[in-house]
Amino acid sequence: MKESNQRDFCIADLKGVESPAGYPCKPPKTITVDDFVFSTSTKGTPNAFNFSITPAFVDQFPALNGLGISIATVEIKKGGELPLHTHPDANEVVILENGSVTAGFISSTYNKVYVKTLTTKGNIIVLPKGLLHFIINNGKGKAALTLIFTSVRPRVQILDLALFGNNFDSGVISKTTFLDPQQVKKLKGIFKGSG
Amino acid sequence: MKESNQRDFCIADLKGVESPAGYPCKPPKTITVDDFVFSTSTKGTPNAFNFSITPAFVDQFPALNGLGISIATVEIKKGGELPLHTHPDANEVVILENGSVTAGFISSTYNKVYVKTLTTKGNIIVLPKGLLHFIINNGKGKAALTLIFTSVRPRVQILDLALFGNNFDSGVISKTTFLDPQQVKKLKGIFKGSG
Amino acid sequence: MKESNQRDFCIADLKGVESPAGYPCKPPKTITVDDFVFSTSTKGTPNAFNFSITPAFVDQFPALNGLGISIATVEIKKGGELPLHTHPDANEVVILENGSVTAGFISSTYNKVYVKTLTTKGNIIVLPKGLLHFIINNGKGKAALTLIFTSVRPRVQILDLALFGNNFDSGVISKTTFLDPQQVKKLKGIFKGSG
Amino acid sequence: MKESNQRDFCIADLKGVESPAGYPCKPPKTITVDDFVFSTSTKGTPNAFNFSITPAFVDQFPALNGLGISIATVEIKKGGELPLHTHPDANEVVILENGSVTAGFISSTYNKVYVKTLTTKGNIIVLPKGLLHFIINNGKGKAALTLIFTSVRPRVQILDLALFGNNFDSGVISKTTFLDPQQVKKLKGIFKGSG
Amino acid sequence: MKESNQRDFCIADLKGVESPAGYPCKPPKTITVDDFVFSTSTKGTPNAFNFSITPAFVDQFPALNGLGISIATVEIKKGGELPLHTHPDANEVVILENGSVTAGFISSTYNKVYVKTLTTKGNIIVLPKGLLHFIINNGKGKAALTLIFTSVRPRVQILDLALFGNNFDSGVISKTTFLDPQQVKKLKGIFKGSG
Amino acid sequence: MKESNQRDFCIADLKGVESPAGYPCKPPKTITVDDFVFSTSTKGTPNAFNFSITPAFVDQFPALNGLGISIATVEIKKGGELPLHTHPDANEVVILENGSVTAGFISSTYNKVYVKTLTTKGNIIVLPKGLLHFIINNGKGKAALTLIFTSVRPRVQILDLALFGNNFDSGVISKTTFLDPQQVKKLKGIFKGSG
Repeated sequence: MKESNQRDFCIADLKGVESPAGYPCKPPKTITVDDFVFSTSTKGTPNAFNFSITPAFVDQFPALNGLGISIATVEIKKGGELPLHTHPDANEVVILENGSVTAGFISSTYNKVYVKTLTTKGNIIVLPKGLLHFIINNGKGKAALTLIFTSVRPRVQILDLALFGNNFDSGVISKTTFLDPQQVKKLKGIFKGSG
Repeated sequence: MKESNQRDFCIADLKGVESPAGYPCKPPKTITVDDFVFSTSTKGTPNAFNFSITPAFVDQFPALNGLGISIATVEIKKGGELPLHTHPDANEVVILENGSVTAGFISSTYNKVYVKTLTTKGNIIVLPKGLLHFIINNGKGKAALTLIFTSVRPRVQILDLALFGNNFDSGVISKTTFLDPQQVKKLKGIFKGSG
Repeated sequence: MKESNQRDFCIADLKGVESPAGYPCKPPKTITVDDFVFSTSTKGTPNAFNFSITPAFVDQFPALNGLGISIATVEIKKGGELPLHTHPDANEVVILENGSVTAGFISSTYNKVYVKTLTTKGNIIVLPKGLLHFIINNGKGKAALTLIFTSVRPRVQILDLALFGNNFDSGVISKTTFLDPQQVKKLKGIFKGSG
Repeated sequence: MKESNQRDFCIADLKGVESPAGYPCKPPKTITVDDFVFSTSTKGTPNAFNFSITPAFVDQFPALNGLGISIATVEIKKGGELPLHTHPDANEVVILENGSVTAGFISSTYNKVYVKTLTTKGNIIVLPKGLLHFIINNGKGKAALTLIFTSVRPRVQILDLALFGNNFDSGVISKTTFLDPQQVKKLKGIFKGSG
Repeated sequence: MKESNQRDFCIADLKGVESPAGYPCKPPKTITVDDFVFSTSTKGTPNAFNFSITPAFVDQFPALNGLGISIATVEIKKGGELPLHTHPDANEVVILENGSVTAGFISSTYNKVYVKTLTTKGNIIVLPKGLLHFIINNGKGKAALTLIFTSVRPRVQILDLALFGNNFDSGVISKTTFLDPQQVKKLKGIFKGSG
Repeated sequence: MKESNQRDFCIADLKGVESPAGYPCKPPKTITVDDFVFSTSTKGTPNAFNFSITPAFVDQFPALNGLGISIATVEIKKGGELPLHTHPDANEVVILENGSVTAGFISSTYNKVYVKTLTTKGNIIVLPKGLLHFIINNGKGKAALTLIFTSVRPRVQILDLALFGNNFDSGVISKTTFLDPQQVKKLKGIFKGSG
């Protein structure tokens, strides 16, 4: 067997071109232990929703290539939130690290709403793939979460940005959501959309 | 080999209990050609959005068990629409059968909006899994579509029903969508929600 | 995350080299709505079996890359047919669009034959993967079908062409099929085979 | 964790009902080493094609449940053959154990015929899924083969039995294969078909 | 569609019989938000290796059925360890929550050893499926870890228990490991094995 | 359809770069029957464990690309063995070709040991993925085996080489295996390790 083909893992070569199976593999000879290590300990600046996120997806952490999972850590300031959104290709497991949050999702069966407040480090909730969900920090201080996704790079569709943060035609929005035109206009203003 | 184990197909036994792989299989001896046949030619009554749908999902058409696809036919009255919605677990292929429709979806990458008007029988558009999308009949008469899904039973999350057609707490809706409370109240009224 | 890695879909780059997972993905920046759109409305010239086919497989419609499905439309002239053939890697769903056809397949269990005549637009039959099947237009005019396959590029093995449309040794054909040598010779003549 | 859920394997409970994922698992407490052991050393009586087969499929060897492979041993008498057939759901790897055989398959690409004579113990040929193939013992004595399939229970469609060993309508056979009616009649006689 | 078949998830019915795809699904009508929630906040008593583990596998947390992932939290006392072991069916992602640990695994390629000390909350290491690995608490106090597995119920094979904690014949152990008989005898004593 | 895209198989282009799905495919035009053929009839020189192995993995036999299986033949001299080892990514099926062997594996459930002596050509044992197992030739002469793996290139972790055939720190070995330091030193000497 050629040395280059003996492998236990397929660390992503991020310069290669992806296929539906992921990135091509780095040559085994170039791999060191640091390819298997990542740190989520540095935190970003909170965004307009008052949360910051540190992703460990395949593009940040190439060791995840082909493994079907990824991780992120999130900090939500007091009163902040992860607004209503979906992950079109990933189930999500939320682990509470610190603080207190209310998490909820809406099932497609009877549009039933499932909501739970997590208050203790180690509390876990599963948010099924593709369903609208939210997390609100309703505690007395900062909340911290570890998120696990069943995808190497979970996609995110935040409802407000999908509707109002682009050039989506306002008439079509009203037609397909039944929102009042002035409501659409107002939110287009907030989320810097046009159209 | 026992006769009962010789099989080319696993027709769903709808009385059995599903697992993540689908329904258990019907005994081969009970299978006839009619297990492989379905008809979408009868049409339902249009709903409040002015469309009717005839599903050929695994629960209507047990031959699809384990095959990973399903079909539906849709008729949209003039001016009607399939309002903004997602299929959390299925890509969708839309084939125009009659009339003219405008279809669109919103990508999770930069919230880019993709819109196309289909005008000729045989026009096809692909709507990727889990993304918000809509179809509007903007033609001069009824429109007819054949829909193909990459799931034996595509789930559907219609945005307005998920937000306003249930007991989802109005305060949380406003908090997580930035919609004005009076807008929420109005749409709760239209879609018969409470909370 | 690098922009080039944010993607909701993996449109095939047909100039790339396929792997078992399909084609590599086109760079997201080059993608427009037209990558998601196809038309089967133009029809080819009928072949010797009196049918014409318009495929929407991954090579014609790169949006299907990695989705595991594809589509074709078929027109069969009066009295024409899709002769006995298999799709070695795809289940097939046949939707009658126009006319009347008789479809059948042979199960590998007891070689049982399943045959059904479809007469109404919207009639559907499922033809399980890898089994010999046929469709005959036995109606009073042209028949039109939409075909759905559980593969991005269904392979087709037409029995007569596999046996008689190549250089397959005639002695081996007789030995392995029990057809008379003169029958083999006659059909080699019709299907332009040698050997 | 309940004892009954600790498991390294899912030995098939053949009395259970299959789903698309296979059989349910036997209770771990009932499992012994004999569940993992099988013998292909006893041979059946040769059939009309002069071969005998000893299958180690999931129904004979329940340890294969969920593993996606199975095995068979075959003996072909001098001059005997495995006539033209397909495995609709399995790739096949043939290992020559004894004697000499000629194996061939027909690709669906240009109907190209691939043929090879294997003469030495340990010679291997791969026969891709779903394609027509044959194996002829053209050696001076008995031939023995080990077959490996990428399915726990490979299905088999023998061309002659599919066409002539059942009640497949003779007129439809001629129509869809272009075989002469008298040829069909003759082979229906040999393979005990009707219709 | 029957109500009972509309589902977004397949919560495990732990009383049902598993198949290779997992447990059968609980009836949707019986599902509440508590089916999606779990807590790892209670900790067990440290074992002989000085660690305690709180698993959130499918048997403890039925919401994971069919999702292909699971979670555990681990506490390791000062000087304690997770001794050399494998997970035969799961990749593992280790997230340091508290303290300092040294983690390592041995690749099957050239038996190369990869070792890293994690010192900061949020440090992550990936341990590829099926390879021998260990984690030692070499810090000044207790260490805490969150473990993520790419299996709903990761199996664990601890080397010492597999060799010495059962009735594995001592002569065969020496023969197949090259350990001295007295070493085997000594460790059989420690790990309460016989044979 | 472009000729280059019509394919029934994806023969590995070993010069291409692997992805998690395997190698890219060779251009169809370059493929001949010899791409589907391999021979295990030549045997290597026995190693220190007194066995020789002839692999037919994807790197030797590119036709297996994407098929999920591979094969090897093994000869074990009298008294020789396949010492305790795992295949981290493959189930294994052992077929006895000649001689007599004792095979065993250790389950991760209760560390139960499963052992069986195979004495007759055609005897088969299944060794589940990722578990420690061994095969000893305890017959009166050479033993020969055919091995089938559910991976195109099964990885192998031989326990002694993983522990003692590299630069794995001796103190860490003793700490994580409870082996005596002098035992570690002795085996490091035998297996040419350092550290």
